[in-house]
Amino acid sequence: MWPPRLSGDGSRPRAKREENHVSMRYLHTMVRIGNIEQSLDFYCAKLGMQEVRRVESEAGRYTLIFLAAPEDKAKAAAQRAPLLELTFNWDPEKYGEGRNFGHLAFEVDDIYQTCERLMKTGVTINRPPRDGRMAFVRSPDNISIELLQKGEAQAKKEPWSSMPNSGKW
Amino acid sequence: MWPPRLSGDGSRPRAKREENHVSMRYLHTMVRIGNIEQSLDFYCAKLGMQEVRRVESEAGRYTLIFLAAPEDKAKAAAQRAPLLELTFNWDPEKYGEGRNFGHLAFEVDDIYQTCERLMKTGVTINRPPRDGRMAFVRSPDNISIELLQKGEAQAKKEPWSSMPNSGKW
Repeated sequence: MWPPRLSGDGSRPRAKREENHVSMRYLHTMVRIGNIEQSLDFYCAKLGMQEVRRVESEAGRYTLIFLAAPEDKAKAAAQRAPLLELTFNWDPEKYGEGRNFGHLAFEVDDIYQTCERLMKTGVTINRPPRDGRMAFVRSPDNISIELLQKGEAQAKKEPWSSMPNSGKW
Repeated sequence: MWPPRLSGDGSRPRAKREENHVSMRYLHTMVRIGNIEQSLDFYCAKLGMQEVRRVESEAGRYTLIFLAAPEDKAKAAAQRAPLLELTFNWDPEKYGEGRNFGHLAFEVDDIYQTCERLMKTGVTINRPPRDGRMAFVRSPDNISIELLQKGEAQAKKEPWSSMPNSGKW
């Protein structure tokens, strides 16, 4: 049993596990945004997230906006919902993307309805839910967002099943 | 009351709010990893996260590993913990980073103890908790991780309060 296994699969010796025990919980994922209005239009008005907290720092010259998905916000007591933190730096920067970050994923009740609503407001569905289960869109700063049908995939149907991909995600 | 406010602050007219109502919840943040062993060593053995699910796709030539922070895993019923998804593509890629993604943040019971444990295992504390509250480290693929003291900041103390930054985060 030595060296200890590293995959957290419970096979490590007890003493080692105790030593490694930590109390730790997920708070948020932070992404940087180039424009507050465009980002709130995308994440809140179009995608449906809700603002839960805002911090403005004159000294640090930044604005932090914390968003929650509606179901998380409704169920979480005392601000324990997993959050998305939007950081807006008052001094403009260029926000390129990197492949080490993949995407943020959210579960939705109806993937078709969600994508239809997004399309109507001008959001490109980069990966349409051809399979009745999964779609990808991108934020104004090219953060990839995965939308997943809750539970089982829905039956395939048009116009989705034959809709081509658009760009990358 | 027109145009509707976009910040999700509840000031939008009722009709607009109803129309925009969506059921949606956060599932995970996905990051790509270049090496499974090194990543599990960092995220699980060192940081303390736990593996909750693994998917191997021979056809897609990828492995997906889902991790949860221990407190989230313990409290969440039926896999409803916010997760971190590690994607390992079997065909190697280069994983550069971009500024549009910021970091993942976790709350810990004792920021000093956490940083001491990480340092002992060879993890660089890029931003030491000089203020008794906040630290930053990086994953093997340069994903920035913020560690935040639960509740109030701890009293400042050495060696932390005079420890310099190291690299970027």
